[in-house]
Amino acid sequence: MIVILERDCSLKNKAGVVRFIERQGGRPLVTEIGDETHIGLVGADALALAADLAGMPGVAEIRAVALPYPQVSREHHPEPSTIRIGDLRIGGDEVVVMAGPCSVESKDQLSIVGAAVADAGARMLRGGAFKPRSSPYSFQGLGEEGLVLLAQAREETGLPVITEVVAPEDVGLVGRYADMLQIGARNMQNFRLLSEVGAQPRPVLLKRGISSTVEELLLAAEYVVAAGNPRVVLCERGIRTFETATRYTLDVSAVPVLKQRTHLPVIVDPSHAAGDRSLVGHLALSAVAAGADGIIVEVHNDPDSALSDGKQSLTPEGFSSMMDQLRRVAEAVDRYVSPPNEVVNGPDTHHSLGRSHAFSLADPLARTNPGSGPE
Amino acid sequence: MIVILERDCSLKNKAGVVRFIERQGGRPLVTEIGDETHIGLVGADALALAADLAGMPGVAEIRAVALPYPQVSREHHPEPSTIRIGDLRIGGDEVVVMAGPCSVESKDQLSIVGAAVADAGARMLRGGAFKPRSSPYSFQGLGEEGLVLLAQAREETGLPVITEVVAPEDVGLVGRYADMLQIGARNMQNFRLLSEVGAQPRPVLLKRGISSTVEELLLAAEYVVAAGNPRVVLCERGIRTFETATRYTLDVSAVPVLKQRTHLPVIVDPSHAAGDRSLVGHLALSAVAAGADGIIVEVHNDPDSALSDGKQSLTPEGFSSMMDQLRRVAEAVDRYVSPPNEVVNGPDTHHSLGRSHAFSLADPLARTNPGSGPE
Amino acid sequence: MIVILERDCSLKNKAGVVRFIERQGGRPLVTEIGDETHIGLVGADALALAADLAGMPGVAEIRAVALPYPQVSREHHPEPSTIRIGDLRIGGDEVVVMAGPCSVESKDQLSIVGAAVADAGARMLRGGAFKPRSSPYSFQGLGEEGLVLLAQAREETGLPVITEVVAPEDVGLVGRYADMLQIGARNMQNFRLLSEVGAQPRPVLLKRGISSTVEELLLAAEYVVAAGNPRVVLCERGIRTFETATRYTLDVSAVPVLKQRTHLPVIVDPSHAAGDRSLVGHLALSAVAAGADGIIVEVHNDPDSALSDGKQSLTPEGFSSMMDQLRRVAEAVDRYVSPPNEVVNGPDTHHSLGRSHAFSLADPLARTNPGSGPE
Amino acid sequence: MIVILERDCSLKNKAGVVRFIERQGGRPLVTEIGDETHIGLVGADALALAADLAGMPGVAEIRAVALPYPQVSREHHPEPSTIRIGDLRIGGDEVVVMAGPCSVESKDQLSIVGAAVADAGARMLRGGAFKPRSSPYSFQGLGEEGLVLLAQAREETGLPVITEVVAPEDVGLVGRYADMLQIGARNMQNFRLLSEVGAQPRPVLLKRGISSTVEELLLAAEYVVAAGNPRVVLCERGIRTFETATRYTLDVSAVPVLKQRTHLPVIVDPSHAAGDRSLVGHLALSAVAAGADGIIVEVHNDPDSALSDGKQSLTPEGFSSMMDQLRRVAEAVDRYVSPPNEVVNGPDTHHSLGRSHAFSLADPLARTNPGSGPE
Repeated sequence: MIVILERDCSLKNKAGVVRFIERQGGRPLVTEIGDETHIGLVGADALALAADLAGMPGVAEIRAVALPYPQVSREHHPEPSTIRIGDLRIGGDEVVVMAGPCSVESKDQLSIVGAAVADAGARMLRGGAFKPRSSPYSFQGLGEEGLVLLAQAREETGLPVITEVVAPEDVGLVGRYADMLQIGARNMQNFRLLSEVGAQPRPVLLKRGISSTVEELLLAAEYVVAAGNPRVVLCERGIRTFETATRYTLDVSAVPVLKQRTHLPVIVDPSHAAGDRSLVGHLALSAVAAGADGIIVEVHNDPDSALSDGKQSLTPEGFSSMMDQLRRVAEAVDRYVSPPNEVVNGPDTHHSLGRSHAFSLADPLARTNPGSGPE
Repeated sequence: MIVILERDCSLKNKAGVVRFIERQGGRPLVTEIGDETHIGLVGADALALAADLAGMPGVAEIRAVALPYPQVSREHHPEPSTIRIGDLRIGGDEVVVMAGPCSVESKDQLSIVGAAVADAGARMLRGGAFKPRSSPYSFQGLGEEGLVLLAQAREETGLPVITEVVAPEDVGLVGRYADMLQIGARNMQNFRLLSEVGAQPRPVLLKRGISSTVEELLLAAEYVVAAGNPRVVLCERGIRTFETATRYTLDVSAVPVLKQRTHLPVIVDPSHAAGDRSLVGHLALSAVAAGADGIIVEVHNDPDSALSDGKQSLTPEGFSSMMDQLRRVAEAVDRYVSPPNEVVNGPDTHHSLGRSHAFSLADPLARTNPGSGPE
Repeated sequence: MIVILERDCSLKNKAGVVRFIERQGGRPLVTEIGDETHIGLVGADALALAADLAGMPGVAEIRAVALPYPQVSREHHPEPSTIRIGDLRIGGDEVVVMAGPCSVESKDQLSIVGAAVADAGARMLRGGAFKPRSSPYSFQGLGEEGLVLLAQAREETGLPVITEVVAPEDVGLVGRYADMLQIGARNMQNFRLLSEVGAQPRPVLLKRGISSTVEELLLAAEYVVAAGNPRVVLCERGIRTFETATRYTLDVSAVPVLKQRTHLPVIVDPSHAAGDRSLVGHLALSAVAAGADGIIVEVHNDPDSALSDGKQSLTPEGFSSMMDQLRRVAEAVDRYVSPPNEVVNGPDTHHSLGRSHAFSLADPLARTNPGSGPE
Repeated sequence: MIVILERDCSLKNKAGVVRFIERQGGRPLVTEIGDETHIGLVGADALALAADLAGMPGVAEIRAVALPYPQVSREHHPEPSTIRIGDLRIGGDEVVVMAGPCSVESKDQLSIVGAAVADAGARMLRGGAFKPRSSPYSFQGLGEEGLVLLAQAREETGLPVITEVVAPEDVGLVGRYADMLQIGARNMQNFRLLSEVGAQPRPVLLKRGISSTVEELLLAAEYVVAAGNPRVVLCERGIRTFETATRYTLDVSAVPVLKQRTHLPVIVDPSHAAGDRSLVGHLALSAVAAGADGIIVEVHNDPDSALSDGKQSLTPEGFSSMMDQLRRVAEAVDRYVSPPNEVVNGPDTHHSLGRSHAFSLADPLARTNPGSGPE
């Protein structure tokens, strides 16, 4: 249920509405959309308060939201939201490219790959320190040592870093090192973990489970937002089907479908979907043409020796070449990809398309020096 | 198995090789690739002839082809093939757009839609006369009357027409009216029908079955080619998965996967995949970015009254707008889409990228006046 | 829509109703259910006739049937139907076992396997003469020669024979030799073929497509029944899923689901579902426990040399052993499987459970000497 | 890798082998199989020790185990294992039925349902206290209060209780109340949770993920066993496919497939697979006929008011009736289901089939008074 306030509602009346909801055990979510104030109200008993709320001073309208994921739905936030990480915005005109190795393996590896992807125009550095592996006997990641290497790579490259968190008890640790926390496909319905990342301030990249519907992905995002963290980016990474020519089947339609239903940004992981580096570039172009707000891709300096996912990792050269093509496709759909090897000038230099950024979710941990590392 | 002749092999020696294969009960398939002559040899006993063939005059090399679909494989024809229909080439630099109503419903409907899609840059007119429908009580198409209307629309629009054939006994009839025969997804493994369209000269659009693997699609194409008709275009149109947010799941990865394995052109049908017109444009852009050689899309002047598939049909305005975006994405991947409302000048005007057309499959029924209708 | 006549409706009034429907372009389907006469009326304009029909003499009630498959639905025929082939009934207390080789390969092979399965209690002999194969280069069956061998095997074994028909133009030919026509999974939506087998008198075994829903299977059955042949048996044979440990995934739930929705008998093919003979027995037991009316299973005297499907074929010994277990499970669910090596005495000897056979579909081609061969 | 000792190997030599492995950083797993001693050795460097081990006194043979799940594989333990919980054995001749409500809702509800299922022959009481729910706004279970109610119900019914644990940090808490811990389908690849339940002594019921392969399920079980807990029971509960007539598709073939590959017991959950109570009984019979070692089924005294999964819950009457049928099918496959309303006499009274129980995994927390509650 959404309570919409009158445009000239006084602060006192607004506070009155919020306090009333809280006293009744509800949870009010206040959002400014343009010059309107919306107060989302979630929980089983929301409807019971409707009559009382309708009569309160300052209330213009009560709107029932039937969707099971009220806070992430477009009905609640008709404008697309952008997620800020330092000077980076996910969900705006820029198609944000995140790149790096599947697993953090060593300082050297991360330095080489980090420098290469930064030069080619990547805007975030990815790398796994905690790896969920199907077999208990596979390499499980470097753990905290990997996080330390990621933080060092951020210093070297100036890129914010993203890494996966696999258990509720690790959330604090990972959040001390990383700029963005990734929830992997296998954990999309690990609800305890979702609540935990929802209760901390870092933005979250939520990957779709390999057999989760679009609806279930949105419900999982709602878990994070309902726990208090609205800074969620969704990621399509391939679903499991009967086809075995690719590792998974990239559901590229999920991009426009998600963007119709939610205001959250949507990116695509072509590497895990394809499972084969010769396909990654094609899928990346395809995703951007379909409207994706970004790409997350695996790059390794020596893919054949990678401790995980080598077969699907691009070489630095392959990545750079993919970026050149990506720039052209992004422009064909009125977006842009950061240029290689030079200072990024931001969207103004590239476009003035006037896309709305009204519902921008600022980084509560914002640092004055972008990329200067977590406190 | 492929027999590769010496470059200066005499015609007499070439004939000797062919005759030897035929006498042993084999089926020789002669192809000129650039200045090389390849003789494909299929059937269970091909390998038994290898030693004899290796010793014959004019034979340069014997190459074992392990793939179960030798004639459609890239190993046999390393160059992409193009299929000519009048002055149109499928598989070249042009991204060929085929458009029209799901079902041919009336002369008026076809005139209006045909004119609209021709004006917007479509290069072929599609329309169903025989409709395979899940229920025996649904509209099954106008049959031959629909074919007559399609032939009239060809006269009006100058566009060659494509329509589905659903039974072996209709192949002759449909071939008298249509420029290209479509095998629908439900009939991809109707092997009798495949053999029948393989034994006639019209080019064939072969749609992937909703639960067929890429491998099975190639085997189905091999049926058509093995029966004598090398002019086959493949079409990805969505596969059946657990996801219900779209009617089917467009397997966009199938485009690059197919293009790695076969020399045949590959197009995409975003309409049936999406099942919803609001998604069709996004999927079309995505397909072209992934490397598709064309798009086949449903357009209806009054979608809400359509006798079939109205929900997924674009309006003429929607189609025209999609075409504008498609042109930009095509150019971003060094291809082009025919411009609206003007004489098509062919690839030279647009690009001179020197893509190879070595293995061009000319139309054996080619007419001097393109679009003048079948005899 | 179903018109239900008064119990004492005169033949004249009944004829009046039928004639009225026909004059209005409708198609009346007259069924006697117990002592009630139901006239099914299908086609788009059925509802328009409701008012007129309601006022006609002899009409007791007009019942709207909302299901898209009125004639095969339980709403139309609340009692399960049984299909008679000679003295055999499919859909009664007996769990009917059909067995034989995947492909008819030779007279010897069929004699050996036929005698073995008859001795072990099989009630029909299966064998493929026309084989739909994914590759054009695989063994495609012996064609009419195979049909002749099947007819000879019927003479030897006394078992009616079932074989697949793959194209509309073969229906007449196959029907001259076989007692039951099988529509394979790949042809479940070959609507022309469905109509053709619907227009001839032999009973039809309709296999579910590997990615067809239960709903689509019922619609396909409706095609056959709507074309005039009510003697249809459905067959679950595994669907395509992500799991590769088995060739297909046997959807055992489809058995009770189908039996809730349709009056037609439902059997199961564990051989194609499993793809591995070590699993076939387990799946057969499972199917009977779930309520299947029969089993169709592949048996070969020398599986490792079989021209098709050897891996999943039981040996005669394996089949005989499976039959012993099947008898016990059938009895545990109040059914029976024909005993080995002795004259079959029919249901009375085994059970007197009083299951209703009210809607028994007699064989219009019934022969006085069961198994005496087609005319 | 498995080290097989000589039959007359001295204890000193055996200890020498174990100590050698431990000193090299390996993890030895000692198992007595009949009169042979097998020492499993897992970890990346196992092979490096092979030569040294082969030369040690008392070593008969070194066997490479290629499977990725050595400890749960049949190669390692050719005999089926049974898991003891008090006087109950899972994996023996008895088909163990676990039943109870989806969620623990109140003391009354649990008393009524517990008494009913105990009377009808259930051998364990199930009930959810922590519920993983797709939506953050759905009922999430009573938490510890639910655990207390389960422990009380154990006192009343004499049945051991099983309940789900959803997060690593809850494992200790849940283990204090429950006799068996359930890992739900969504957590099958929550590797941290798997390791945690592997490091405690309660037996574990591991449910297959809805899109996990049989291979992945075995790898997940290997996580638990590798962490030290060999008492794992696997559970097939339906996979996600395109079919929507049932909530999931019960993969009944997984039962014999799993039993070929692993020595662990395998049970089936027909309630979640079907999603509809009218199908549950059919699927339960089907599972037992296929060889399942048990059934876990949802029962509710007032299904229409259930806080979760009411649609698929049996009534107590429906459960009792299903149990009667289950007894007959179990006997048809030489197993038995505990009788209703009387003291259970154990396998000897029912059968003397001599099935091997060589690899019985005794309960390290075994209580003298079965059902007397956790310490």
